[in-house]
Amino acid sequence: MKKRVVIIGGGFAGLNTARVLGNKEDIEITLIDRKNYHLFQPLLYQVAMAALGEGDIAAPLRNMLANYRNVTVFKGIVEHIDMENKTVVTDFHNIPYDYLVLACGVQHHYFGHNEWEEFAPGLKTLAQAKEIRRRVMEAYERAERTTDFVERKKLLTFVIVGGGPTGVELAGSIGEMSRYTLSKFYRNIDPKLTRIFIVEAAPRILGSFSPDLASKATRSLEKLGVQVWTNSMVSEVDADGVQIGNERIEAATVLWAAGVTAIEIGKTMEGVETDRIGRIVVSEDLSIPGHPEIFVGGDLAHFVSENGNPLPGLAPVALQQGRAIGKNILLDLKTKARKVFRYRDKGQMATIGKNKAIVEFGGLKFDGIFAWFTWLLVHIYFLTSFRHRVFVLLQWGWSYFTFSYGARLIVNREWRFYPDADSCALRKEKAKKE
Amino acid sequence: MKKRVVIIGGGFAGLNTARVLGNKEDIEITLIDRKNYHLFQPLLYQVAMAALGEGDIAAPLRNMLANYRNVTVFKGIVEHIDMENKTVVTDFHNIPYDYLVLACGVQHHYFGHNEWEEFAPGLKTLAQAKEIRRRVMEAYERAERTTDFVERKKLLTFVIVGGGPTGVELAGSIGEMSRYTLSKFYRNIDPKLTRIFIVEAAPRILGSFSPDLASKATRSLEKLGVQVWTNSMVSEVDADGVQIGNERIEAATVLWAAGVTAIEIGKTMEGVETDRIGRIVVSEDLSIPGHPEIFVGGDLAHFVSENGNPLPGLAPVALQQGRAIGKNILLDLKTKARKVFRYRDKGQMATIGKNKAIVEFGGLKFDGIFAWFTWLLVHIYFLTSFRHRVFVLLQWGWSYFTFSYGARLIVNREWRFYPDADSCALRKEKAKKE
Repeated sequence: MKKRVVIIGGGFAGLNTARVLGNKEDIEITLIDRKNYHLFQPLLYQVAMAALGEGDIAAPLRNMLANYRNVTVFKGIVEHIDMENKTVVTDFHNIPYDYLVLACGVQHHYFGHNEWEEFAPGLKTLAQAKEIRRRVMEAYERAERTTDFVERKKLLTFVIVGGGPTGVELAGSIGEMSRYTLSKFYRNIDPKLTRIFIVEAAPRILGSFSPDLASKATRSLEKLGVQVWTNSMVSEVDADGVQIGNERIEAATVLWAAGVTAIEIGKTMEGVETDRIGRIVVSEDLSIPGHPEIFVGGDLAHFVSENGNPLPGLAPVALQQGRAIGKNILLDLKTKARKVFRYRDKGQMATIGKNKAIVEFGGLKFDGIFAWFTWLLVHIYFLTSFRHRVFVLLQWGWSYFTFSYGARLIVNREWRFYPDADSCALRKEKAKKE
Repeated sequence: MKKRVVIIGGGFAGLNTARVLGNKEDIEITLIDRKNYHLFQPLLYQVAMAALGEGDIAAPLRNMLANYRNVTVFKGIVEHIDMENKTVVTDFHNIPYDYLVLACGVQHHYFGHNEWEEFAPGLKTLAQAKEIRRRVMEAYERAERTTDFVERKKLLTFVIVGGGPTGVELAGSIGEMSRYTLSKFYRNIDPKLTRIFIVEAAPRILGSFSPDLASKATRSLEKLGVQVWTNSMVSEVDADGVQIGNERIEAATVLWAAGVTAIEIGKTMEGVETDRIGRIVVSEDLSIPGHPEIFVGGDLAHFVSENGNPLPGLAPVALQQGRAIGKNILLDLKTKARKVFRYRDKGQMATIGKNKAIVEFGGLKFDGIFAWFTWLLVHIYFLTSFRHRVFVLLQWGWSYFTFSYGARLIVNREWRFYPDADSCALRKEKAKKE
């Protein structure tokens, strides 16, 4: 009888498990995702900044998996995992499994202040990216038509909470857009006067990078008009700005690039250990201790690496874990011993603006135009399909030489609050420990 | 003192008036639109069918008009026209005018059944196009995961109400997609069994074309699996399908491509004559009789042509009227006589699918691959910018040779009911005759 593998989540981890197991004999795969597409999250900020369209960084999961005849894709919502009967309970029908792969990812975390999300959207989904785009462009529209100078200043102020790569990329893009692209489009405002702040609680931004690269990135941001506030913990976010202890910035647009929390699936599973942010603690083979039939990969997994720390939530980690899970399932079927997962470090990088990036790889550290080209080539290389690569390269080329961006369209609000923010599955109201 | 020209609506008419008056001495132009972009409506159905992205057929009005230093663009909502004080009352501030150009276009009309819109969205705005895309793709997703055969049949049934060019283009696209593109992506359904209907009240579809071309288009549609029902008036639309007299089709997706009605601005203006569908009746110079300072152009204008009928709502009509209005304002300023508007007939065309189209131009009529190339070249030529031309051509080329479509992504519902359906301005609750 065929082994039934159910994968929840079509991100880097889930997709790569499916690819390893695709067209293998005696295996039937069901992949469930709340969305109908795989998203290339590393470029999501470019959709938020209108440099790319949504179709450039996302592709329907069905298309990507069409040639694996043993893969069935369902767009649906997982309600809970019945571990006793080895069944996934969904909003359409129940799906029994022999192996279960959990790869649901993470969502934004507001440190106990979920009410801030309305005023400070995060950047994990396409809908959020387009909401950020809408807010940024709408702020300029409103600034152009107001006659109240105080209101105008507030509209031309952008606060990014969190100084990790996402925060830096968002701030850099707004800096570049306001200084170089928008200036000739308005009659009543000068977009070059846009105020941009990164507010970071730690003593410096880009904490995962080396201090000298982070310092160079800070200088690059400053050249684009971004002010970096470190040791600054946001104490309040409202419709008019942010409070940082005794200080206050009035801003019509606040973006959230700070903490993340795992999709709550782990907490709903009896006897499964989760860490402080809800990630599921896994064994060396990526399965849940005591449940060799359940694997966890990607941002949802808490995997302790050789240095004793959990691996970070990066695309290469998720990709490698997804493949390793697939290979371990194949080893099981051949009744061979599973392999221990080892992360091969792919380094990390962040881009600040045109010709400006920082790259860390093994012992290598570099910045400037060469880092920027490295960033560009790596992202193009890892893009989902040949079609994506061609069209993204063309659009970047176009923007590079014309210094214009793509379509800064404001289409209707299409974004909803918290319940939709998670990237794959699990209906919230049912996600409670029984 | 400079003459103040206020243009309401940034479609083909309004945009072209602004272009004629742009950078002309002694003129100050204010263009107000509810959206921040100009939309190339003839290709809107391709966004609905995921063949193109929203950025491919729309561009921010500010970018398009950036080089005209005397043009100010406001994204805003017009509340009413104070004709006595020559002032446009908006939701931000009031704008006085010496000349007013009304170019607000039309929206869908449900023959007194606005409650049908929820079940049968029209196709006039980008948000509507993306809602149609979402509904079509969601129907396939739900069909794939249901185990109920009656439900599945309903989900794989698409009814298009109205057999004009938009209805034909939508039906042809769904036919082509279901027969050629989708088949390998699903495991539980055969997309080739998709049922597609065009329901048209008149004795034939494409009533504005000659009978033999319409007949050829009908044959082309049939080859793509579309059934054409003529002499069929829809009597009821609900969440499960449509009623046509005694007949009923169960369909999860119904699309509306039937009647249109003008944006209601005309009815709110004292002493202004409107026709049956609310269009404003204009004089030969495109101004409102008795109000030489107010012009109307595009779909909103009821202009009686030489054959005694009002001009149809086509892009070339709007474009030519927009230019003519601009020129007449310039003639006024030179104290010369205005010119009578004459429409230079650009013919009409519609595409049914790959290599299939019909074209009528003067005495010429043709169909097939040559018509299809004509359609393609004309649309590329009239696209808004060089960037749009390049990217649309590339995507079409890609789809043509790979027979794949672009990104069939289902992003969150972003579409709202009636109040947002109009293409430019006028807040509904205030649009009442005082």
